[in-house]
Amino acid sequence: MKAIGFKTSLAIKEKDSFIAFETQKPEPKGKDILVKIAAVSVNPVDYKVRQNSAKDTVLKTPKIIGWDAVGTVVAVGNEVTLFKTGDQVFYAGDITRSGSNAEYQLVDERIVGRRPEGLTPEEAAAMPLTSLTAWEILFDRMRISAEKDKGKSILMIGGAGGVGSIAIQLAKKIAGLNVIVTASRPETTEWCKEMGADVVVNHKDLLNQMKEAGYPQVDFILDFVNTNSYWDKMVELIKPQGHIASITGSADPVVLNDLKTKSVSFSWEFMFTRPMFQTEDMIAQHHILNKVAALLENGTLKSTLTNTLNGLTVENLKDAHALLESGKAIGKTVIKF
Amino acid sequence: MKAIGFKTSLAIKEKDSFIAFETQKPEPKGKDILVKIAAVSVNPVDYKVRQNSAKDTVLKTPKIIGWDAVGTVVAVGNEVTLFKTGDQVFYAGDITRSGSNAEYQLVDERIVGRRPEGLTPEEAAAMPLTSLTAWEILFDRMRISAEKDKGKSILMIGGAGGVGSIAIQLAKKIAGLNVIVTASRPETTEWCKEMGADVVVNHKDLLNQMKEAGYPQVDFILDFVNTNSYWDKMVELIKPQGHIASITGSADPVVLNDLKTKSVSFSWEFMFTRPMFQTEDMIAQHHILNKVAALLENGTLKSTLTNTLNGLTVENLKDAHALLESGKAIGKTVIKF
Repeated sequence: MKAIGFKTSLAIKEKDSFIAFETQKPEPKGKDILVKIAAVSVNPVDYKVRQNSAKDTVLKTPKIIGWDAVGTVVAVGNEVTLFKTGDQVFYAGDITRSGSNAEYQLVDERIVGRRPEGLTPEEAAAMPLTSLTAWEILFDRMRISAEKDKGKSILMIGGAGGVGSIAIQLAKKIAGLNVIVTASRPETTEWCKEMGADVVVNHKDLLNQMKEAGYPQVDFILDFVNTNSYWDKMVELIKPQGHIASITGSADPVVLNDLKTKSVSFSWEFMFTRPMFQTEDMIAQHHILNKVAALLENGTLKSTLTNTLNGLTVENLKDAHALLESGKAIGKTVIKF
Repeated sequence: MKAIGFKTSLAIKEKDSFIAFETQKPEPKGKDILVKIAAVSVNPVDYKVRQNSAKDTVLKTPKIIGWDAVGTVVAVGNEVTLFKTGDQVFYAGDITRSGSNAEYQLVDERIVGRRPEGLTPEEAAAMPLTSLTAWEILFDRMRISAEKDKGKSILMIGGAGGVGSIAIQLAKKIAGLNVIVTASRPETTEWCKEMGADVVVNHKDLLNQMKEAGYPQVDFILDFVNTNSYWDKMVELIKPQGHIASITGSADPVVLNDLKTKSVSFSWEFMFTRPMFQTEDMIAQHHILNKVAALLENGTLKSTLTNTLNGLTVENLKDAHALLESGKAIGKTVIKF
């Protein structure tokens, strides 16, 4: 089968930052299904892995990355019960395994959902990784529920990216929160409002802008940009008994004690925790994806697709990574095979 | 009225670490009730405030501390709706206001519960601050529910103290968790089992003891000892998607990123957050105390009282603080007026 990968970590503009190659089509065992891929999307995790996983080394066989796909089940392992050959599926996958930048991919059925009907392959391919991340952060990590939290306020730092675009929708439509997001350019501001944000503030003057918007403090904060650089501002902006969560990681230690007097909570969300640790509840991702599919089908949620590239080519992957690395991406970029 | 306080922060063995004095009996306004106190308990926060709030200074009037009391309502402010003169109440109070080491005390009705019937004043006085702390950490900060979490595991570091003693009971009886606690002496081990702990491990060899007990990792961890010194062990012992919470504060920054790959959450609990910030939901403490009263009355929970001193005297307060400062206290010490 055809695949695209890399043997060494190179800047995206270098000739061999991605290479096309032929490799054996894999066969499914156990709970794995084999999917013939129709479209994939790119996420920041892709370029982080590309930049860091083969530094100062040359791999014998190219590494295939990419964690978001739509496709058709073409074979199933002997323990598979949720899907059969011919089913249309979408999924993010498992960062410890080979990715979706290939004609075929193996994936554990417990982290796969049925592809939403009525959406194009590219509209569907935009959704799995970011929807899982946003769903898990809001409902599994922070345990937000409409019943307890409707009408409370949430600030999202970095609203226009892939996770922000769907987190805005889930926070607004499913949890019933008042959603404030940061964005600084006219086009990102417009996009965040389109996704459902009630208020857009500029991150460059965040504390003042929040006061002026009538939200000197909020009940929840999601950090999609940088935990360390926003720590002091989040400490100030979070309400007593509030909850901060982040997907970014932090390079430096933090003064956790800053949150004590206010009894604040902090959560990390890493979408690959369930597959990576094979948690007992990893099938939760199957259920989340099916719920998201239903919400996309009935129009509650809309695809965050903004940009479609045609063909699984080295050039398209380079363009997609370069756009994400620029930090200017709005919504999601998809590559349609 | 008679009260006991201090004008300067002194070691507990110093003659004037506490002094008895006469002061004006206060009058209730607004939502305040005036309580004639029958018994108080002591908590670690008491000696921390005594040791630190009047360092290198001498206050003009003595500071009255103490945040736990049982008593009778003897007057009410003009906005009081929950209580009337003659009601028996119990409460922890507000750290920003004058404490309970006095004949009378003002307290906002929204953080007061009705005194449980069938318990002695000293049995009841042992409960408010620690019950509020344990209830808030489990059910408000971590959002644990029997429905979602029954059968999961919780480790409590420091099980035999005041908060541990009631947290064990709530985790076991209300949340349905498997409760593992640390204790190292025969008498603390015995006490923790009496409170309902399923497993007691020695903190000196924690990781190995947890493995041997069949709990190499747990779903929840409560730290009642020291966040910084247990950080690395908690990082190892927490399950993917687990939740750590602490009441201790941390003097040094922590490597929060250690929890990222496992998508772990961390919460602080500070019982005074609601009264200190006058949160919109501060009446939650009224409801929690009433629930705890009902659970004490029907025998689901039992008082954690272990030690009763008779009389509001300087000597008794010194003894009670010295015991807490030793770190060897089991359950709760109460002073009966």
